[in-house]
Order: sequence, then C-alpha cells, then structure tokens
Amino acid sequence: MKLAIDGMGGDHAPQSIIEGVFLALEDFPTIEIQLYGQQEKMVPYLKEHPRLKVIDCSEVVGGDDDPARAVRRKKDSSMAKILDAVVTNEADACLSAGNTGALMAGGLYKVGRIEGVARPALATTLPTVDGQGFLMLDLGANAEAKPEHLQQYAIMGDIYVKKVRAQQAPRVGLLNIGTEDNKGNELTKAAFTLLKETELNFEGNVEARELLNGVADVVVTDGFTGNMVLKSLEGTAGTIFSMLKEALMATTKSKFAAMLVKNDLRSLKDKMDYTEYGGAALFGLQAPVIKAHGSSNAKAIYSAIRQAHMMVEHDVCATIKDAIAKQQHVKEND
Amino acid sequence: MKLAIDGMGGDHAPQSIIEGVFLALEDFPTIEIQLYGQQEKMVPYLKEHPRLKVIDCSEVVGGDDDPARAVRRKKDSSMAKILDAVVTNEADACLSAGNTGALMAGGLYKVGRIEGVARPALATTLPTVDGQGFLMLDLGANAEAKPEHLQQYAIMGDIYVKKVRAQQAPRVGLLNIGTEDNKGNELTKAAFTLLKETELNFEGNVEARELLNGVADVVVTDGFTGNMVLKSLEGTAGTIFSMLKEALMATTKSKFAAMLVKNDLRSLKDKMDYTEYGGAALFGLQAPVIKAHGSSNAKAIYSAIRQAHMMVEHDVCATIKDAIAKQQHVKEND
Repeated sequence: MKLAIDGMGGDHAPQSIIEGVFLALEDFPTIEIQLYGQQEKMVPYLKEHPRLKVIDCSEVVGGDDDPARAVRRKKDSSMAKILDAVVTNEADACLSAGNTGALMAGGLYKVGRIEGVARPALATTLPTVDGQGFLMLDLGANAEAKPEHLQQYAIMGDIYVKKVRAQQAPRVGLLNIGTEDNKGNELTKAAFTLLKETELNFEGNVEARELLNGVADVVVTDGFTGNMVLKSLEGTAGTIFSMLKEALMATTKSKFAAMLVKNDLRSLKDKMDYTEYGGAALFGLQAPVIKAHGSSNAKAIYSAIRQAHMMVEHDVCATIKDAIAKQQHVKEND
Repeated sequence: MKLAIDGMGGDHAPQSIIEGVFLALEDFPTIEIQLYGQQEKMVPYLKEHPRLKVIDCSEVVGGDDDPARAVRRKKDSSMAKILDAVVTNEADACLSAGNTGALMAGGLYKVGRIEGVARPALATTLPTVDGQGFLMLDLGANAEAKPEHLQQYAIMGDIYVKKVRAQQAPRVGLLNIGTEDNKGNELTKAAFTLLKETELNFEGNVEARELLNGVADVVVTDGFTGNMVLKSLEGTAGTIFSMLKEALMATTKSKFAAMLVKNDLRSLKDKMDYTEYGGAALFGLQAPVIKAHGSSNAKAIYSAIRQAHMMVEHDVCATIKDAIAKQQHVKEND
C-alpha cells in the first residue's frame, strides 16, 4: 500500500512528520511512503529506507494561504503533490498536518467526491472516559447542512467505525440540545426523522454534556455546531489542564505532591489525548485524505498514518461508495 | 425591594432554597422576600424573619411537566405564583431553580416581552481563568435565531454587564467558527454586519476554544449553539474533575498527595464554579426572571438572589426598554 505524505505541514514540520513516518515504517511492513517536501529542510532528519521515497517540491502551502485557492495556485507545493499522487493512483491515500481549509478544498477539487455524496464531511475520533472514543462529524467541512447531509454523514461514519475501529453495529447519535425525540431546531428535527428511516443503529438525540461519557459511537451534527463543540471540548480540557499544572507547581508542597501523582495525572491526560486516535479524515472523497492536527508530534503523525493504513486496508471509500449508491437507489425507488 | 422566590424548584428544594434566602436576607438589608411553596414541606427549614413572608401554594411544577403548559395549568403552583407576583407589582423580580422551560414559557406568557424585543434570550455568566467571567446569550430560549435577534441579544447583554457587573464598554464578541471577519454560516455572517452597525464595543468573532480565556465580556450566539457550547463546557469540566478525583483517590500514595494539594485543587475548582456568578436570567422581559441552576446549593441561590437584587437596583429592564426603543426608532428612520 502506498501513502503520500506532506512533509511540510504543521507546527513541527518537517521534523515530527519525518519521525512519525519512520515510526510507521517500522510498525507497518506493507506500507510504502512517498514523502513530499522541500528537500533541503527535510535532509537533516532523513535517513535511507527501502520503503521511503522522498520527492522534492519547490513550494509550501502556509497556514495563512487562502484555503480556496492555495492548492490550485501552488502547483508544486507538497500539499498539491500528495493530492496529485492519489489522483494518478501513485498513492492509495494521502496525509497532511498543514492548512486544514486548503487540504479540504484541494481534496474536493483534485480527488473529488464519491458520486451521490452531497457534501464530504470532516470526521475525527474524540476521547471518552472509558478509552473507547467516538467518531464525530461534520467538524466544519460545511458551515451549513441540510437534514439529508446529516443522514449521509451517519452512513459514512457508521462504515468507518465498523471497518477501522472494528465495532459491530455502532450506536449512532444525533447531537442535539435535549435527548427527547422532538427536541432541537428545524435541522435536527428533520434529521431525526431521516435517521430513523435508515438501517443504522440510531440511538436518537445525544447531548454535548454526555459526549465524553461515550453515549454513542458515531455522533453526527452540522459543521458549524461540530466545530463549536470540538473547540469547546479542546478549549476546556486545555484550560483545566494548564490551570492544574499551575496549581501543582505553585509551592514546594504542591510540587512534592505533583511528583507523587505524576503517573496518575499523565494517564489521565493520556485518556483525553485524541492524538492517540489519529487525525481527521475527509469522508465522502474518492480516496482517504487525512488531516493530522497542526500541532502533531511524531506520535500523532504515526497514529494518523495508521489511520490512513486502516482506511485503505479495509476499503472504507469503496464501502462508502456502495452504501451511498444503495441509498440513492432506495431514494429513487421511493 | 421585593423579590418573589419559588421555594419548590430544583434538586435540593426546599432546603437549599430557604438556606440561600436566609443568607441573602442577612447580606442585603433592603430586600424583602416572598417565599412561595408548600408550607408543610418548607416548615422544617423556616424561621421567623421580619423581611420574609411565606405564602402557601397547593401545587408544584415538576421537572417532567410540559414546559409550554405547566404554568398555565398549575395556577396555584409556586412557579405560577412568583410570576403573578411580578405581574401585579407585588414583587420587583422573581427567581426559581425549577423547570427551565416552564419558567421561560411562563415568564413570556405572564410577565411578557419588552416592546420591540423580538425574542427574549437566556443569559448566564460563565467563568474565565482570570476570575472575571463573561456573559453568554442565548443559551437556549430559542432554538432558531435571525441575525437581528443576535443584535438585540448583544444590546441587552451589554446593558447587563455595564449595570450589574460594572464593566465599562464591555467587549462584545460573536461566537463563530473562526476569528476572521468573513467566517461562519449565513446567520453569523449577517449578524456580524449588524453588530458592526451598533455603537457597541464589538470585537468581532470569537472562538469557543478561547471563551474561558476571557476573549470577550459579552458573547452572543443563537440558542442552539449556545446551549451546545454551554453543555460542552460543563460536561468537559465535570468529566475532567471527576476523573481527577478518581485518580487522586486510587492509591494510598495518591491520597496523601491529594491531601497536600487539597486547597490548591479546591481553589481551581472554585474558579470554574459558575454558581458564584448567579443564575441565568431571561433578558427582554418586563421584569427580571431569574433561573437558578437545578442543582443549586444555598450559595448558588444566594448568588442568584444577589443577581436579582442587582438587576432591580440598577434598573436593567427599564434600561433595556429604552435601548430597544432607541434601536427601533433608528431602524424606522433608516
């Protein structure tokens, strides 16, 4: 299996990208990696590997580049090149930790949608207290959504969780402001009805308050709300952990206490660490396009590569294609 | 100043309500309290007080009562009675820790909107790292919102923060999925333009990730998003604190460490404790209607009474009325 990786994206590129690549090469003997980037910047971290090919690119898509145009304009950027590699079948999947909007727009423009998918959605696995995690989508690929989009998000998410996370009959939840069936705004009320009509294991509405407790395996919502909730979770967890660190470093006594519980606190923080679960994937495209977090360290890149590997190995895109074709067929015959 | 209080609402009623009432009577010499509820249930916690009047009610609005009809049907409930007291001018403001939906619907139906206010909004002050807190609205009074509603929420929130929290020129932020001016969905893009047109100290878009860092003093959003973000913040904080507690109680060593940092952890938890800041208020009604959290303890009830007291003392409703009238006048002459 061939993976095309953007060596230049993210806050710690190219070092953490390359370190993650070598971790993955070691663990997954069937993958071959094409690493795209500015050779002179990558050289200090590179070493020879029989399953690694390095391709020099003259350009880089930056965090401030206009998402809608970056990939079209910077034709020789590492981000454009990983997408090209997928289009020409030189790679089975691609991955970048760079500009999210640019990767989404580029993925849509170059790799293209699966027929019948109205809107690709950005999905990621978030942590739960029990360590299982849950998949949430859309996280902001589309600021607006219609009820039928949410239905498709659920179909795609269900397939991913079955295939990649090996869960039988994933519990699908609709993110809403209450658990009662008739709760919500026009969008969620209509989506609720559409989700009831599917063959999914639809558990009804779920509340944001309960997400970390693992109330569902797949949680669907519009991209605006998904983005808000994701950032609220991240922001709150980050704030509390940094306040906690500050409190524990304040005095000699607290420092001593912190030393005693260092491992307990680390395991707590690890539980909330979603870099474990891989990156975000753009669902509904012809091939896996994975977005690793901008702040990815080597471990996070490794997890995102593992995710790409699983998506290719389990043929997630082809399965989504079949499921959407079946859905469209049912709709036409209704 | 006269306040009408529902003795029966909330998880710890009537005990914590009555305890909170006595704390407030002690601290605020100008308030007179009318306490409505089932006398036989309240008696064990009551004592005589020259500024406390207890009114027996035969009915109680429960948590499962249909919000839209509860107050209309249960005419002799403590919740209906506190609203009646405001309508007949026997009280200047009212407060309940009971069924939120029923209090909102009842407030709208009995107390009524200020002329020109399209939609009343539910607002509360949430904690920030620096201890200042910020006001967020709407938290779910309306599941749908139009851009002009968000503009009015901002006008009302600005007045509240100026009057009750004594902040000059509060920074108003629009909750959005990015900080750039052109970010968001149709609603936030249109609301951005309308907010720019006001005389408010509008700081532009703010992200959910930054809320706890105090990026704005007033944050406006539609009720669906507001409810989602509020519950995400609460849920994440609650989950992390309970995981932390579990980790610290796991072994003898960790218990010893926990003892050493007990005070530090408590002060951290207190910082995130929004019961400090009072309850939620329904803005846009003719008189203050305060909703204390269902799980309110005596301190939270005390804070909510202090909030009602401040709203009456600083004439928040009359000021909102003037501001909305002025806004309507400007719109008509446009």
